Amino acid sequence: MAGAAIAPAAARRVACIGAGVIGSGWAAHYLARGLDVVAWDPAPDSNERLRTQVAAAWPALDRLGLAAGASRDRLRVAPTLQAAVVDADVVQESAPEVLELKRELLAELGEATHPGVVIASSTSGYPMTQLQQHCATAERLVVGHPFNPPYLVPLVEVAGGERTAPWAVEWAAAFYATVGKRPLTLDHEVPGFVANRLQEALWREALHMVAAGDATVEQIDLAITQGPGLRWAFMGPCLTFHLAGGAGGMAHMLDHFGPSLASPWTRLAAPEMTSELHRRMVDGAAAAAAGRSVAELAAQRDQDLIAVLRALADPSPAVETEL
Amino acid sequence: MAGAAIAPAAARRVACIGAGVIGSGWAAHYLARGLDVVAWDPAPDSNERLRTQVAAAWPALDRLGLAAGASRDRLRVAPTLQAAVVDADVVQESAPEVLELKRELLAELGEATHPGVVIASSTSGYPMTQLQQHCATAERLVVGHPFNPPYLVPLVEVAGGERTAPWAVEWAAAFYATVGKRPLTLDHEVPGFVANRLQEALWREALHMVAAGDATVEQIDLAITQGPGLRWAFMGPCLTFHLAGGAGGMAHMLDHFGPSLASPWTRLAAPEMTSELHRRMVDGAAAAAAGRSVAELAAQRDQDLIAVLRALADPSPAVETEL
Repeated sequence: MAGAAIAPAAARRVACIGAGVIGSGWAAHYLARGLDVVAWDPAPDSNERLRTQVAAAWPALDRLGLAAGASRDRLRVAPTLQAAVVDADVVQESAPEVLELKRELLAELGEATHPGVVIASSTSGYPMTQLQQHCATAERLVVGHPFNPPYLVPLVEVAGGERTAPWAVEWAAAFYATVGKRPLTLDHEVPGFVANRLQEALWREALHMVAAGDATVEQIDLAITQGPGLRWAFMGPCLTFHLAGGAGGMAHMLDHFGPSLASPWTRLAAPEMTSELHRRMVDGAAAAAAGRSVAELAAQRDQDLIAVLRALADPSPAVETEL
Repeated sequence: MAGAAIAPAAARRVACIGAGVIGSGWAAHYLARGLDVVAWDPAPDSNERLRTQVAAAWPALDRLGLAAGASRDRLRVAPTLQAAVVDADVVQESAPEVLELKRELLAELGEATHPGVVIASSTSGYPMTQLQQHCATAERLVVGHPFNPPYLVPLVEVAGGERTAPWAVEWAAAFYATVGKRPLTLDHEVPGFVANRLQEALWREALHMVAAGDATVEQIDLAITQGPGLRWAFMGPCLTFHLAGGAGGMAHMLDHFGPSLASPWTRLAAPEMTSELHRRMVDGAAAAAAGRSVAELAAQRDQDLIAVLRALADPSPAVETEL
């Protein structure tokens, strides 16, 4: 990764910029993985807020297993942005989701960091190309979008902008993998990335349903947690529908249930099922199945479903809070 | 429940009509709960297909725990529809999702069953009002929509049509609860019911993304299973967003992230955030939180998330297949 200041696995000091729910969650995660964290946030109570939130997350991280040397004592709150990032091996920016604010902040961070230091933004939806305008160090700016809480949910969406160097995207993905996250590197810039787009489609349908009186908030949540949500913890919507096709898999599902795409089952119109889309779905499902037959996948699904049902039914001892 | 032939908890014999993936799954579930099942399907190989699928499900059900007296020997395949339902305490219809076929079948089932016997359709989206047209026993017809596999996923959506008697809806919900399912009784008829509408919105966005080249099948599945899908196994989208609002909960989330409803993050346009919708979401989230503070909910979320992550990471002994 020509251009990088340091190898991803050698990064020891992370600067966490922003101490809200996401920034604090990142700090907790990096601390639990045994890294040093220097944080900064302009709010006057940021030191206390950050430490309170890290303390709230710590029992969960402790139960999940801390890395060797992991300690909350390795958290330092810096008095200025410059002091926070001057010795950082990598920067995680988690400022409020305001375009102009993030643009200016990322430009400042570029100037305050050593050359070759990757700066990842936790933005939940702005494409990096929009964020890196006017930035002199755009080549080191990437999206590193986590899910809440960042110290427990593995997914981090990684994407560069038009002016991002390919090495920086590779570096960020490799770094996240070494600290226990599951990076998903996007090939294309799309607003909202992948997981938030899917989540947002579901959320908007839910809002429409509540607005129209079709269902209540509680009915919507119950419908997910007792239904498809249980499967989605281990099997995505595509592989789930691959199984719904029985032995014929995705191809049979698309042909058989194709007409339901025309059903008024959501307010979102379906795309036309062109032969090209059909091919991509069938080939994609085959790739995701990775040689496993539908019967084998169904047996694995049953096993995972039982594991999840048991894990959630079994009230394990409460996580002790330290607050 | 005036009108019912029998109390829900007294039902011992279930007729399963249709022996596809869903019908067989229902048969496996009822057998595992210790009931007698009489099945019927017009396909020539239905007997073999049914027994093969029940056998495939059985090891999972055995691991999850069988009811006293549960046995696959209590499955009988009847030669005719009439023979299958003549002594049934309740009927579960799982025929192919073809409107005319289901209409005729439900009318036939009404005539072949004793008065007061509830007939539940596994339809994945047709409102009962559409299905019960031309049926002489419409008052006993309800929707009882499961999720795949019906022997493991708890949710069953229960809904009546315009001509369904209220007692039949109540009876079906009570019956499902006694056999270990989680019934969700819908107040309004809406095509696709609740869970499928939400699932379908997500699915259509996924299809659009694949069609546009935004993401691949594998990226979509990974984005769900490593991200929001993990939370959805125990916390629905509404309560999840209630937590995203921090101490301010849903109200803060709607005010703070309200602008993202206008973001091009999905192809589904958002509803207008009227004061009435705002109120319903905030009140609904408060009801779902049931007195738990956001900090308490976050601690519970962490605990459940750890349980799910551990359950899925821990490769428990494989379910033995009997095939």
